[in-house]
Amino acid sequence: MSSIEEVLREVLPEVIPGEELVRKAKKAEEELRRRLDSALSNYPDIEYRFLGSYARDTWLPESLEIDVFLLFPEHYSFEELERIGIEVGKSVVDSYEMRYAAHPYVHGLVAGVEVDVVPCYRLKSPERIKSAVDRTPFHHEWLKDRIRGKENDVRLLKRFLKAGNLYGAEFKVRGFSGYLCELLVVFYGSFENLVRNATRWRREMVIDVENGKIEVKKGQQSLFVVDPVDRKRNVAANLSVDNFARFVERCRLFIENPSPEFFRTASRAVDVDRLREELEGRFVYAVSFERPPIVEDNLYTQLERAERRIRKVLEDNEFRVLRSGHHAGERCYLLFETTAGELSKVKKHYGPKIESYENSMRFLRKNREYERFFEDGRYVTYRRRKLRRAEQVIEHAIATQYESMGKDLSDYIRDGSVHSGEEILSLHELLEFLTEFLGVRE
Amino acid sequence: MSSIEEVLREVLPEVIPGEELVRKAKKAEEELRRRLDSALSNYPDIEYRFLGSYARDTWLPESLEIDVFLLFPEHYSFEELERIGIEVGKSVVDSYEMRYAAHPYVHGLVAGVEVDVVPCYRLKSPERIKSAVDRTPFHHEWLKDRIRGKENDVRLLKRFLKAGNLYGAEFKVRGFSGYLCELLVVFYGSFENLVRNATRWRREMVIDVENGKIEVKKGQQSLFVVDPVDRKRNVAANLSVDNFARFVERCRLFIENPSPEFFRTASRAVDVDRLREELEGRFVYAVSFERPPIVEDNLYTQLERAERRIRKVLEDNEFRVLRSGHHAGERCYLLFETTAGELSKVKKHYGPKIESYENSMRFLRKNREYERFFEDGRYVTYRRRKLRRAEQVIEHAIATQYESMGKDLSDYIRDGSVHSGEEILSLHELLEFLTEFLGVRE
Repeated sequence: MSSIEEVLREVLPEVIPGEELVRKAKKAEEELRRRLDSALSNYPDIEYRFLGSYARDTWLPESLEIDVFLLFPEHYSFEELERIGIEVGKSVVDSYEMRYAAHPYVHGLVAGVEVDVVPCYRLKSPERIKSAVDRTPFHHEWLKDRIRGKENDVRLLKRFLKAGNLYGAEFKVRGFSGYLCELLVVFYGSFENLVRNATRWRREMVIDVENGKIEVKKGQQSLFVVDPVDRKRNVAANLSVDNFARFVERCRLFIENPSPEFFRTASRAVDVDRLREELEGRFVYAVSFERPPIVEDNLYTQLERAERRIRKVLEDNEFRVLRSGHHAGERCYLLFETTAGELSKVKKHYGPKIESYENSMRFLRKNREYERFFEDGRYVTYRRRKLRRAEQVIEHAIATQYESMGKDLSDYIRDGSVHSGEEILSLHELLEFLTEFLGVRE
Repeated sequence: MSSIEEVLREVLPEVIPGEELVRKAKKAEEELRRRLDSALSNYPDIEYRFLGSYARDTWLPESLEIDVFLLFPEHYSFEELERIGIEVGKSVVDSYEMRYAAHPYVHGLVAGVEVDVVPCYRLKSPERIKSAVDRTPFHHEWLKDRIRGKENDVRLLKRFLKAGNLYGAEFKVRGFSGYLCELLVVFYGSFENLVRNATRWRREMVIDVENGKIEVKKGQQSLFVVDPVDRKRNVAANLSVDNFARFVERCRLFIENPSPEFFRTASRAVDVDRLREELEGRFVYAVSFERPPIVEDNLYTQLERAERRIRKVLEDNEFRVLRSGHHAGERCYLLFETTAGELSKVKKHYGPKIESYENSMRFLRKNREYERFFEDGRYVTYRRRKLRRAEQVIEHAIATQYESMGKDLSDYIRDGSVHSGEEILSLHELLEFLTEFLGVRE
C-alpha cells in the first residue's frame, strides 16, 4: 500500500497540463486578446476579462477551455447586451455554436482551443446582479489571490471527483462545481487536508469559507457552503445528498487505502450474460424514447420529472418501487424496478367509518361489485384492479399523463416504448447504466 | 315494504317458545328441583338457584337450557367447591359431560332438557367475587324485576343478533352476551327503541344502564356498557369493533327496510364455480390442520394468535396481506390473501447513514453480494430473498415458529398443510367461510 504522498506524487503529472498544451493555450489566449481588442474598439465602455479555471490556472489538461467575459456597463439593456455579446463573440472565434446559460453566448474555437465568450454586466457589488453570470467576476476577484500556490490541489480534487462521476454542478451530475472545488481548497488549505476532513462531514454542516469556520445547523438536510460574495447563497446547492454521501465515502476509502485509481476514470465492464441472469427473477422495466434537441440541464430536470411521475403512478397502483433512474445517450431512458411484477385482480377500497350514517348508506348503495366488510370499524370492499402488471401501469401512465412529464419531453415519451426483462438487453447504450442500476458487482 | 310493527308481529311467534316446549321445560325444571333437594340434603349450607335466561324467561325456543347455580358459603375452599359441585351435578342429570368456565361444571340432560349445574360462591357483595361465575347471582338479582314485561324484546334482540352471527360473547363470535342483550333492552325500553338508537351509536359511547344515561368519552376505541353490579366492568368488553359496526349497520338496514329476514338465519349458498373463477388471479392461501381437543374459547384465541403470527411473517417478508381469517369445523383453518403471489429475488437491505463512519465501513466490508448505493444519504444494498412465494413464507413461518402459535395448537399446526389457489376448493367445510372471506356477493 502506498502512502497518500506517494499516490499524489504519482498522479500529479497526470492532472497538470503539459508544456506543449500550456504553450498552445497561451497562443490561443494571445490571439483571442488581439481579436477582442479590435472587436471592442467600437465599444470603448465594454471591457473583457479572462475568468474561470483557465484564468486561475486550475484547469485540467483534458478540459482546456478559455472563458472570457464581456463586461457591459449597466446602462445597456438586456437585448443590447445579448445582441452585442453574440456579435462580438462570433467575430472573435474561428467557428462557433450558440450555447445557453443565463443568456445565449458564443462557444467556439480560437487557434484550436475551445473558448466561451460570455456577456455580463459590470456591477459595483454582487448584491445587484441580474443573472448568475454577473456573479462570475466577483468569484474571480475573491479567489484569484487566495488560490495562488494551491492550483494543483484544485486539479487533484477535480480529477478525484471526475473519476467518481462527482464533478460538475449541472443537473446531469448534481455534483461539485469548479468554483466549489476552489473554495474547498482555500478553506482546507490542501487537497489532502480536505479529503481527511471530509471523511467526517455531516449534512448539518455550514462551511463558512470567508470566516474560516464551520457551524452545525441541526436539522439541515444538506451541506451548505456559504458563497463569500453572496452569503445567502449555498455554493453546494446543486450537490445531491447522495453525491454528498458518495464523496464522503470516496474520501474515506482513499484515506484508508490510497491508490492512483481514485484519479483515473474507468468505464464499467458490461457482462450481458450476468445481466440476463440478474434480470431473471427481478421486475425491471425500461422506457426508451428519442432524445429531444434541448440543452442538457433542461433535459435532465425533465427526465427526473418524468421518472418521478411514473414512479408515483406505480406506487398509486400499489407497486413498490425498489429503485428508479434515468439515462440519456443517443436516446433517453427511464428505468424502474419493482418488488412484484403482477398484483391480485382485486384491490382494497376503503369507505367511511361506521359512525358516519349518511356516508355509510351511500357506500352500501354504490359498492356492489364485492361484499363489504369492516376493518377497525371502517368499511372496506374489493374492486377489480384494471392494471395488474407493472408494465401495464407504466404504459398507462405514459398514455394518460405524458403531458405532465416535462414540456419538451412529453411528445417524445408518448411515442416511446416500454421494455421489460430480457428485452432491455437490446438497449445497448443503456447496459452500463443498467449494470449499476441493478447493483451488479464487478 | 312492511312497517316495523308488522315485521315484529310476524316474527314474534318464531322467537317465543311454544306451549309444548314450555311444558317440557317446566317438567324438567320440577324434576331437577326434586333431585337437587335430595342431592343437597347432606349439604344444608349449599343453596341452589335458577339463574340465566331460563329463570328470567328470556330464552329462545331453539336454545332451551336450564342454568342452575349451586351457591357455596365462602368457607368452602376452591377444591371443595369444585369437587362437591361436580359430585352434585353428576348426581342430578341423566347423562353428563364436563365443561369448563371459571371452574369445571357439569352439563347434562334432565327429562330431555339440557342443563348446566354450575358451582359458585354466595357473596354479600359483587366486589368480593373470586371468579366470573360468582357475579351471575348478582346479575340475576339486578335484572329479574327490571326485565319483567320486556322478555319478548330480549328474545327479538337475541334472534336479530343470531341471524347476523352477532350473538354470544365467546371468542368464536366476539358479539353480544345474553346479559348484555337484557341490559340494552332495560336501557332502551324496547327492541325497537334500541334498534332505532343504535343506528347512531359511536365507539366513544359509555352506556350507563343503572343511571339511564349515555356519556361520550373522546378517544375511546370501543363501546363501554357499564355493568350495574360492577361499575368498572365493561359488559361489552368482548364485542369486537367490527361486530359493533356490523350491529350498527344491521340496525340501519332494518330500520330503512324492515323485513322478517333479519330474524332468520340463512346459510350462505356456496357456488364452487364462482369461487374457482374468483381464486384465479387472486393470491389466497389456506393452512389446514387437525382440530385439537380443547374448549372453544381456548381454540379461538389460539387460532387468532396463529393467524396474527403468520400474517406478521408475511408482512416481514414484504407481502401485503389484504385479509386474514380463521375457521374451525371438523378441522381448523387459517386463511390469508396477499396482494402479490411472488416477489423479486432481491430485497432492499438498509445500512447506516453516511455520517456514521465506523458503521459505514463495517457495512462496506460485510455487504458484498450486490453493489451498494445511497438513498437520502443512507446506505442501501440488495440481498437475495430466500422465500419468493407467499406460500413458501407461510410454510416457513409454520416450520420455524409453530411453537409460538398457541400452546395447544402448535403441534397440530406443525403437522398441517398449506393449500393455495384452486386446491382450497377441496376443503369443503371451509367453502362457506371462503365465500365470505373473498367478498363474493350472492
